[in-house]
Amino acid sequence: MTNKKVRLHDQRFNQGEPLSPWREKLNGIIFGSESTAGKWFDITLIIVILLSVIAVMLDSVASISEQYGTILRILEWGFTLLFTVEYILRLICVRKPWIYARSFYGIIDLISFLPLYLSFFFAGAQYMLVIRILRVLRIFRILKLVEYVGETNVLIGALLNSRRKIFVFLYSVLAIVTVFGSLLFLIEGEAAGFSSIPKSVYWAIVTLTTVGYGDITPITPLGQFLAATIMILGYAIIAVPTGIYSAELVRSFQTPLSNVACKNCGTSGHQIDAHYCRECGTQIDEEA
Amino acid sequence: MTNKKVRLHDQRFNQGEPLSPWREKLNGIIFGSESTAGKWFDITLIIVILLSVIAVMLDSVASISEQYGTILRILEWGFTLLFTVEYILRLICVRKPWIYARSFYGIIDLISFLPLYLSFFFAGAQYMLVIRILRVLRIFRILKLVEYVGETNVLIGALLNSRRKIFVFLYSVLAIVTVFGSLLFLIEGEAAGFSSIPKSVYWAIVTLTTVGYGDITPITPLGQFLAATIMILGYAIIAVPTGIYSAELVRSFQTPLSNVACKNCGTSGHQIDAHYCRECGTQIDEEA
Amino acid sequence: MTNKKVRLHDQRFNQGEPLSPWREKLNGIIFGSESTAGKWFDITLIIVILLSVIAVMLDSVASISEQYGTILRILEWGFTLLFTVEYILRLICVRKPWIYARSFYGIIDLISFLPLYLSFFFAGAQYMLVIRILRVLRIFRILKLVEYVGETNVLIGALLNSRRKIFVFLYSVLAIVTVFGSLLFLIEGEAAGFSSIPKSVYWAIVTLTTVGYGDITPITPLGQFLAATIMILGYAIIAVPTGIYSAELVRSFQTPLSNVACKNCGTSGHQIDAHYCRECGTQIDEEA
Amino acid sequence: MTNKKVRLHDQRFNQGEPLSPWREKLNGIIFGSESTAGKWFDITLIIVILLSVIAVMLDSVASISEQYGTILRILEWGFTLLFTVEYILRLICVRKPWIYARSFYGIIDLISFLPLYLSFFFAGAQYMLVIRILRVLRIFRILKLVEYVGETNVLIGALLNSRRKIFVFLYSVLAIVTVFGSLLFLIEGEAAGFSSIPKSVYWAIVTLTTVGYGDITPITPLGQFLAATIMILGYAIIAVPTGIYSAELVRSFQTPLSNVACKNCGTSGHQIDAHYCRECGTQIDEEA
Repeated sequence: MTNKKVRLHDQRFNQGEPLSPWREKLNGIIFGSESTAGKWFDITLIIVILLSVIAVMLDSVASISEQYGTILRILEWGFTLLFTVEYILRLICVRKPWIYARSFYGIIDLISFLPLYLSFFFAGAQYMLVIRILRVLRIFRILKLVEYVGETNVLIGALLNSRRKIFVFLYSVLAIVTVFGSLLFLIEGEAAGFSSIPKSVYWAIVTLTTVGYGDITPITPLGQFLAATIMILGYAIIAVPTGIYSAELVRSFQTPLSNVACKNCGTSGHQIDAHYCRECGTQIDEEA
Repeated sequence: MTNKKVRLHDQRFNQGEPLSPWREKLNGIIFGSESTAGKWFDITLIIVILLSVIAVMLDSVASISEQYGTILRILEWGFTLLFTVEYILRLICVRKPWIYARSFYGIIDLISFLPLYLSFFFAGAQYMLVIRILRVLRIFRILKLVEYVGETNVLIGALLNSRRKIFVFLYSVLAIVTVFGSLLFLIEGEAAGFSSIPKSVYWAIVTLTTVGYGDITPITPLGQFLAATIMILGYAIIAVPTGIYSAELVRSFQTPLSNVACKNCGTSGHQIDAHYCRECGTQIDEEA
Repeated sequence: MTNKKVRLHDQRFNQGEPLSPWREKLNGIIFGSESTAGKWFDITLIIVILLSVIAVMLDSVASISEQYGTILRILEWGFTLLFTVEYILRLICVRKPWIYARSFYGIIDLISFLPLYLSFFFAGAQYMLVIRILRVLRIFRILKLVEYVGETNVLIGALLNSRRKIFVFLYSVLAIVTVFGSLLFLIEGEAAGFSSIPKSVYWAIVTLTTVGYGDITPITPLGQFLAATIMILGYAIIAVPTGIYSAELVRSFQTPLSNVACKNCGTSGHQIDAHYCRECGTQIDEEA
Repeated sequence: MTNKKVRLHDQRFNQGEPLSPWREKLNGIIFGSESTAGKWFDITLIIVILLSVIAVMLDSVASISEQYGTILRILEWGFTLLFTVEYILRLICVRKPWIYARSFYGIIDLISFLPLYLSFFFAGAQYMLVIRILRVLRIFRILKLVEYVGETNVLIGALLNSRRKIFVFLYSVLAIVTVFGSLLFLIEGEAAGFSSIPKSVYWAIVTLTTVGYGDITPITPLGQFLAATIMILGYAIIAVPTGIYSAELVRSFQTPLSNVACKNCGTSGHQIDAHYCRECGTQIDEEA
C-alpha cells in the first residue's frame, strides 16, 4: 500500500541537490502545494483546465461551433500557449527534467497541449485535448491531501491485491464471449446482424455485461435460448468481481489482533497497540 | 451516526419556551405523532399527499385529462388550498417559524403547493407538484418510528463514512467517460450518432453504467472494440461502489468496542471484555 | 429462522388425531416424502407438472399450435383432470381440509387447474396454467431435503432481517423515479415519447435499473444530462441492496466465539463448543 | 478445495510405471512445464492457438475472407494438421491414453481440430474451431503456476460452497420469469412482439437481467407497470448471488482453523493457536 502512495504521487524527479534560489521558488509554486502561492497556482490551474476542457467540448457541437467558433478557437490557442509555457517552466525548475518528462504527470502534461499543434497535420487531433481532464487528478493534492490520498490508496490497494483473481475472471469472460459469439454466428447468421465472428463476440460482450443495445438481437428460438443463457450467466457472474473486491475491502478494514500472549495469565487476542494485558493488567509489550 | 439522527429528524425549530395552550395543542397534532390526534393527522396527511400525487400524474395523461380534466383540476386546487392552510398553520404553531421555513421539510412543504400558483405564470409548473411525494418521507415517523429511523441511520451512516471513497470513484468514472467519449467521437463521427463530444460522453455514460439504450451505437470495428472495452470496464468497476458499501456495512454490523474510558489515562476504545486499560494497566471495569 | 422453516413447509393442516387407515396411507403418499411410495409420487408429480407447463407454452406458439393444436389440447385436458383428481384426493386425505385449502400450496394447487375451466368463460385464461411451475417448489422436499431447506432458510432469513432496510431503499427509489420522471416529462415532452408523467416514471425506472430498452430516450441536451445523472445514480445505488444483503449474510455466516473465560488461566475467546481451555487444558464448561 | 486442485489440473493419466526413455522425454516436453523445453513448448502452443483463433475469426468477416480467403484457408489447414499431430503425440507419450482422451483437456484438444474435418460434411462446422480458446486455459500452468492456480481454486471453491444457494436462486429466477412472461403474453399480445409464451419468457429474462435490448417492449399501461415491477425485482435480487458469493469469499479469507487432530480423541478444527484439545484437554501441539 505504502508502495502505491509513492508511485502515484511520485516526486522522485524533484529529489536531489538544491537549485538556484529562483528555480527553487518556482519549483515550490508549480510542484508544491504547501505554500499559499503553490495552493493558488494549483487552484487556478484546475479551473483553467476545466474551462479548457469545456471549450473543447463546446467546439465539437456543430451549432455552437458555427456561432462562437472564432472565440472558441482563440480561447483554445490561449489555453494551449498557457499550458506550453507551464510545461516549459516545469522542465526548467524541476531537478531531473528527463525523469519528470517520462513520469505519469509529465506525459499527461505534454499530451494536454500537443494535439492542437498536431491538428495542423491531422484533422480532428485537437479533440484529444480533453485528455487534459486527467490533469485534474492533481486536485487530490489540494483537497485535504492526506485523507483523499489515503482513501485512494485503500481502493487501489484492494484492487492490486485482487489483480490476479480479476485477471482469471477477465480471461473466463473472454473465453465465454468467444465461444457464445461463435455459436450465435453459426445459428443466427447474416440476417439478424451476426455478420462475422468478431461482430458476434461484440454482441456477446454487449449481452453478458447487461448493456443490451439492441442493435443486434437474436431472432431464432435457439439463438434466443442461448442469449437467455448468456444473460443469466452475466447476471450471476457479476457476483464474482463484486465478491472479490468486497471480500478484499472487508479484509483491509479489519484491524487484526496481536498474537502476543500475556506472560502472567496467558491471555492472547489483544489489540495491536495494547501495552497492558486486558485480563490482569500485566505489561505485555517490551520496553522498546 | 447520532449526529445524522438529529439532522434528519431535526426538531430544533420546536425547542424553546412553551406556547399558548391552543398553539401548543395544534403543535402536538401537526408536528407530533405520539398522541392519537397527531397519529391520525399524520395518516390522513400521507393519504391526501398520495392522492394528490396520483391526481397530478393522471392529469398529465392526455386521454384522461380530456375526459376528467375539470374534476382533476378542481381536486388539484382543493389539495393545494389544503396544503397552503396546513403550511400557514405550521408557521403559526411552531416555536421558531423562520428556522422551520428553512429546514428540509419546511422547504418541501412550501414546494408542495407553490407550483400551482406559479402555473399562472409558467405553463407546466403545476407538474412539479409531484415533489409532494418527498413529504411522505414523514411516513417513517409513524411506522414504528424508532426502528425505521435506526435502519435509515445505519444506511446513511455507512454512506457518509464512505463518501470520500465514493467521490474518488465518481471522479474516476467522469474521467473515463470523458476520454472514451472523445475517442469515440473521433472514430465514429456524425453518421453513427456521435455528433459532438458532449453527446459522445452521454453515450459513454449510457454504456459504462450498462444502461445501453441503443439510440447511439458504434458501427466501425475500432469503435465497437473500444465500446467493448468500456462495457467490460463498467461491468467490472460496479464492484467498486458495491465493495465499498458492503465493507462499510459489514464493519458497522460488527461488535463495537467498549465506550468505557480509563479513569487513569483517559484511553477509550477498549475491547468489550477488557478488565484492564491497554495503555496503563489500570483496572477499568467495576468489581460487579 | 426456525419460524420461516415452519411457515414455508407448514404441515399444520396435517396435525391432529389419526385418520382411518386408508386415508392415513394416502396421506403418507401424497403429503409425505419419506416412504418409497411418497418419493415416487413426488418425482412423478414434478415431471407431470413440468410436462404440462411445457405443453401450455408450446400451445401459445402459433406455428406449433396450428400443427399440433388438437394433441396439445387433449394433453392439457388430461393434465388438468389429473390435477383436479389430485386436489380432491388431497382434500379427502388431509386432516384439516379447510386449513390446507387456504395454505400457500393449497392455493397454488387450486390455481394449477382452475384456469382451464375458467377458459370457457374468459378467453386466454388457460395460459395462466403456467403458474403450475410454482408447484415445483415442492422439489426442495425431495432433493436432499434438509440441506436445501437449510440453504433456502439462510437466504430468506437474511432477506427478512434486512426487510426494513430494503423497504427504506425501495421507497427512496420510488421517490427518485417520480421526481426525475416528472422533470423529464416537463423538459422532453411528447415528441421524445415522454407523453405523460406515468410513462416518464416508467422511463425513469427503465433507466435507473440500467435496463435501458431505448423505446423512450431523451433528445434535448438538458434531458440527456438529467438522464446521465439518474444512470450514474442507478449505477451507484445498486451498491445499497447488495451491501445490505452481503453484510447480512456475512453476519449469518460468522460463528461467534464463546465469552467463557478459563478459570485457571483466564483465557477467553474459546470456540462455542469447547469443553477444555485451549491454553492450559483446564475444563471450562460446567458438567451440565 | 484441495479436491478441486486435483480435479482441474488432473494428471492422473500420467501416473504409473515409467515409460521408455524417448516417450518419457516427449512426455516431459508436452505435458510438463518445469523443464526449459516444456516451457517453450507451452508458450509456442499458446501463441499458435491464439493465432489460429484469430485466423478463424478473420475468415468469418466477409470483406477479409474475399481478399485473403486462400491464405487464411491454407493457414487454417496448417494449424489443424499441427494440432492433429500434437494430439497423436499426446496419445503416444501419455501413460494412460484412454483416461487422457476422456479428461477435460483431452476432449478440448480433440475438438480443437476435429471441426475442420467435419466441415467437409457440415457447412459452417469450421467456425467451431474457436473452441480452441479454451485450450489457452493451460496458460495458468506457466504464468507463475502455483499462485494463479491458488487464486482460481479460491474462486471456484467459493462457487462450489455456494452451489446449493445459487441453485435455489436460479430456480426462483426461472419461476419469476415464467410467471411474468405468461402475464405479459396475456396482457400485451401479438402487436407488441409478445407473440408466444416462450418469447415472452425470453423478454422477461432480458428485462430481469437488466440487459434490455428493446426489441420487445410493453406498450399498454398495465404491461409497463408489470415490466417496472420485474425491473425493480431484477435490480434488487442481483443482491442475492452477489451477497452469497461475497459472504462465501469473506469466510474463505478469514483465518482458517488448524488441521491438527487430537491424538487422544481425534477432534480436529481447533483454533490455530490452541495448545490443548477443546474436547478432552489433551495437549495437541508439539513442545517446539
